[in-house]
Amino acid sequence: MPAYRAPVKDTQFVLSAIVGLDKYSNLPGFADATPDLVQAILEEGAKFCENVLQPLNLPGDQEGCTRHADGSVTTPKGFKEAYQQFVDGGWGTLTASPDFGGQGLPHVIGTAVAEYLSSANMAFSMYPGLNEGAQAAISAVGSDAQKQMYLPNMVHGRWTGTMNLTEPQCGTDLGLIRTRAEPQPDGTHKISGTKIFISAGEHDLSDNIIHLVLAKTAGAPDNVKGISLFIVPKFLVNEDGSLGARNGVVCGSIEHKMGIHANSTCVMNYDGATGYLIGEEMKGLRAMFIMMNAARLGVGVQGLSQGEVAYQNAAIYARDRVQGKALTVAGSATVAPGPGPDVVAAKADPIIVHADVRRMLMEGRAFNEGARALILWGALQVDLSHKAATPEERQMADDLIGLLTPVIKGYCTDKGYEVATASQQVYGGHGYIAEWGMEQFVRDARIAQIYEGTNGIQAMDLVGRKLAMNGGRGLRAYLALAAQAVADAAADTRLDAIAKPLEKSLGELQAATMWLMQHGLSNPNNAGAAATSYMEILGIVSLGHMWLLMAKAAHEALDAGAGDKDFYDAKLLTARYYAERYFPDAGALRRKLEAGSEAMMAMPASAF
Amino acid sequence: MPAYRAPVKDTQFVLSAIVGLDKYSNLPGFADATPDLVQAILEEGAKFCENVLQPLNLPGDQEGCTRHADGSVTTPKGFKEAYQQFVDGGWGTLTASPDFGGQGLPHVIGTAVAEYLSSANMAFSMYPGLNEGAQAAISAVGSDAQKQMYLPNMVHGRWTGTMNLTEPQCGTDLGLIRTRAEPQPDGTHKISGTKIFISAGEHDLSDNIIHLVLAKTAGAPDNVKGISLFIVPKFLVNEDGSLGARNGVVCGSIEHKMGIHANSTCVMNYDGATGYLIGEEMKGLRAMFIMMNAARLGVGVQGLSQGEVAYQNAAIYARDRVQGKALTVAGSATVAPGPGPDVVAAKADPIIVHADVRRMLMEGRAFNEGARALILWGALQVDLSHKAATPEERQMADDLIGLLTPVIKGYCTDKGYEVATASQQVYGGHGYIAEWGMEQFVRDARIAQIYEGTNGIQAMDLVGRKLAMNGGRGLRAYLALAAQAVADAAADTRLDAIAKPLEKSLGELQAATMWLMQHGLSNPNNAGAAATSYMEILGIVSLGHMWLLMAKAAHEALDAGAGDKDFYDAKLLTARYYAERYFPDAGALRRKLEAGSEAMMAMPASAF
Repeated sequence: MPAYRAPVKDTQFVLSAIVGLDKYSNLPGFADATPDLVQAILEEGAKFCENVLQPLNLPGDQEGCTRHADGSVTTPKGFKEAYQQFVDGGWGTLTASPDFGGQGLPHVIGTAVAEYLSSANMAFSMYPGLNEGAQAAISAVGSDAQKQMYLPNMVHGRWTGTMNLTEPQCGTDLGLIRTRAEPQPDGTHKISGTKIFISAGEHDLSDNIIHLVLAKTAGAPDNVKGISLFIVPKFLVNEDGSLGARNGVVCGSIEHKMGIHANSTCVMNYDGATGYLIGEEMKGLRAMFIMMNAARLGVGVQGLSQGEVAYQNAAIYARDRVQGKALTVAGSATVAPGPGPDVVAAKADPIIVHADVRRMLMEGRAFNEGARALILWGALQVDLSHKAATPEERQMADDLIGLLTPVIKGYCTDKGYEVATASQQVYGGHGYIAEWGMEQFVRDARIAQIYEGTNGIQAMDLVGRKLAMNGGRGLRAYLALAAQAVADAAADTRLDAIAKPLEKSLGELQAATMWLMQHGLSNPNNAGAAATSYMEILGIVSLGHMWLLMAKAAHEALDAGAGDKDFYDAKLLTARYYAERYFPDAGALRRKLEAGSEAMMAMPASAF
Repeated sequence: MPAYRAPVKDTQFVLSAIVGLDKYSNLPGFADATPDLVQAILEEGAKFCENVLQPLNLPGDQEGCTRHADGSVTTPKGFKEAYQQFVDGGWGTLTASPDFGGQGLPHVIGTAVAEYLSSANMAFSMYPGLNEGAQAAISAVGSDAQKQMYLPNMVHGRWTGTMNLTEPQCGTDLGLIRTRAEPQPDGTHKISGTKIFISAGEHDLSDNIIHLVLAKTAGAPDNVKGISLFIVPKFLVNEDGSLGARNGVVCGSIEHKMGIHANSTCVMNYDGATGYLIGEEMKGLRAMFIMMNAARLGVGVQGLSQGEVAYQNAAIYARDRVQGKALTVAGSATVAPGPGPDVVAAKADPIIVHADVRRMLMEGRAFNEGARALILWGALQVDLSHKAATPEERQMADDLIGLLTPVIKGYCTDKGYEVATASQQVYGGHGYIAEWGMEQFVRDARIAQIYEGTNGIQAMDLVGRKLAMNGGRGLRAYLALAAQAVADAAADTRLDAIAKPLEKSLGELQAATMWLMQHGLSNPNNAGAAATSYMEILGIVSLGHMWLLMAKAAHEALDAGAGDKDFYDAKLLTARYYAERYFPDAGALRRKLEAGSEAMMAMPASAF
């Protein structure tokens, strides 16, 4: 049975060294996030995740969800009770507006807890995760009456929400949507159509499910410009807020998937269901993208979360599993600094003595800690984009998170899957056996690369939209920040080992950007062929940027005589590993990107 | 439901352009492998795989194997009938010795068919695959009487075989084996112990199962030097060859695994089972390694096989799935050579118009075709190591395949998993749904990185053993061959685009080798930390070497006015893609490797 410990200490380090939470106490919500409160939230959240959610993860995978003949869906044993504890603990209310019963805390705190929830039980965490996304859309474009009618119960968790975009013929290309909305004399619409891949579309955790559904109104253009967004509650809501009649929406089936078995992925059939237009007619895509951008950051968190929990278990196994002898003996001249006392003169050593096993672990650790820093720093930008004191600061934060959202979603989920796979590898044959739980992490991590826009779509969003937006203002702002970090490190030669390769990788990023400007505009296929490599380069650079900041903070802490020397020493060794083993790829990726699209586009489709 | 077409044309191309089958017609077995016969075998094998095995793959995954209370195991519906067809078609007899009912054909032909079997149904193909491994060990070290008693029925397929190495406390480190063999007055031994992860350990396909079991005899050293190999038949065999009493070996349980559900992975309990020593006492490991080396090449084939079938389905889906518009319009100035007629002015285009989708497909194709060439060329070396005319030629072939076995097993299975994953990605959300079959390819491919020695062990075998063997003779021979290929290409500037980066990558390989010599001997942890990167560099170089040879052959064919221009054009475009997008990693890997082991070894085990 796998284990999980929420990395509270590391979260605290990032909140202090990277986010600098205390610097923003003048902003709304941040004032309440006192160090004591944050500590309490992280520690209580950790306990809930470790003790309640994590033990349900493996059994939940094995049992899966069950759909009954009437279209109702039962979640695995224990999920209903755990969800009640989630609601009672107020875990869904952390960052929601106090106007609707939320605690109004910064998004960055909610994100820290979201990582724990997802590491402990990704399938479970999707139920409240989707609910939060739906709340974001209603908050952004709903009328006051709609907000009052839905948000208090959704924030509380008594009701949950969903996003309904995909149809059988229509995934990425939402212009192909066929679901229809017929206007009724009372101002409502009748919604008819089939939606697929609806996560948490039907389940037994909440009293009502508020579906947000994309559909085309009668006479609207049959493309993305004709799409409107509708609220379609499972149970209609009476004026007094009580539940009314069952609406005409039903779960037609649930999918058998590679992973996240404990989350119900539903085919939802809408048959003249009563829907309420939310936001302006034919502006549905805009509303959906508000929800989607938040969701993409949440998916990036899932990538990290599976990398983290898989790494933790691999580290435990590597210390426990005894197999083979160390290649070097402690104290011998051939072992420079380590592994010291871990090498025992027994018949066999724990496999953590082997460099290749440590390589797999360090690969995971360097990603996890770097990604945690980037994601929490990104979450801070979300807060600042709404709450910073000046319009300029809000704009800059919005530019930065706009640029980095595809990286957090795309790069962090690609690497999360790789780290989960490498952690499984540490187990040898046992990693392939279900009862050890490692293969579940790989299967669960896999979906994060696919949904909320495949990672290819993220990469295209980055090179096709985000780079060019506002004349490249986002990238310029980011490059200036990273260059500043390099400049700030110049005074301390101990940082050279990471600052120098970061500087070199920033050069690769700039060269790649230049190549895109010169070749991507004249032939968009060059941009398409370059997109994934470009996203990876920016991923390597932005995690490396975080590692430089973390290494600087670790040195400062050690210089100041910090008590927990081991923690900071490990941070510095991991920074060094990152510098040595991640940055070299940036150059290779640039060369791949500069090869352009000719070879792949010249092949006739029939030749594949 | 996924599809599969055996790539007969590509196999033929490799047999002609790379293997040069006709050059060896003076050698035993090769004389029989006339072009007509080879063509017939490949085509008939293709039909059997496409029509019989492939349709059972997805249902076999969903049904899995069933163990009954008496320890017997039932394979999924249709497997028993398909196996009978396999036996009736003589598919298990291709390369076996005519002395025992085999056809005595070259190993390279058997390997070509093995790819088809595994692409069509990897779980099924493991039953005859394990049987072949067991035959190899009996052929190599069995007495004449043992060969006569077991091989005819095993070659026929009436009986099958297994390998029993792993125990709960003992995977890679076979010195830890606890299974005991007590000598009996009649010369047999009583075998007692528990073996785990025994593929095809119990099933309903064959009349008898011949287990080859590693155990320690009484008084033998309690380490690898004390291990002997035993034949333990499920049913004892009477003198006249008929089946006798049920032996004391039973399947205690079957594992619930990530994939290959249709292959039974058994816990085998030996309780005083009658065993027959095979080969010399305490020389069991040597015998097992004969079997293991063949098995490792077979596992490399599995990596290719899942990459190939996943790629094929991704290509079909990419041509069928309509979503989004092409970024360029056919005939416009921005589209240099393609995609030409594939871009239709419809509401949406097939997703194969998108460069990022083609990138994923080309990544798979470049690997699959390169790996097929390397694997068949490697299989030829196996043949030559036994059959070449002179001892020098036999030695050189043995050196080459010894060096490249860890690459074929390690690199080709790592890449096979990546290609399966990327092919699944082409499907978007549908790739995550079981009924499309793509996620099965990923789950099945995953085991190939783990069993028969994890890929980390392969890498250690390469840098720790194979490089140094006979003073580095194997690597020198290989480098000379690759350099010769580069030199042979110099006359044709059309080959520069691949020959030049191959030459550069050979330089990276040599520099990495030099670094290992300088730093790996003084500190073995440096060798361990470098091993996986080194294996990858050699993988990139050796597939690139094959691509140069294939590009040369394609040009020659086109120059000679070959009819199938499309086939050779596609070959040249794929060679170009490989040159542009695979070689750059060699330099990055060398830089990672040269970082050494310090950062990872300095971390205390408790800090992970």
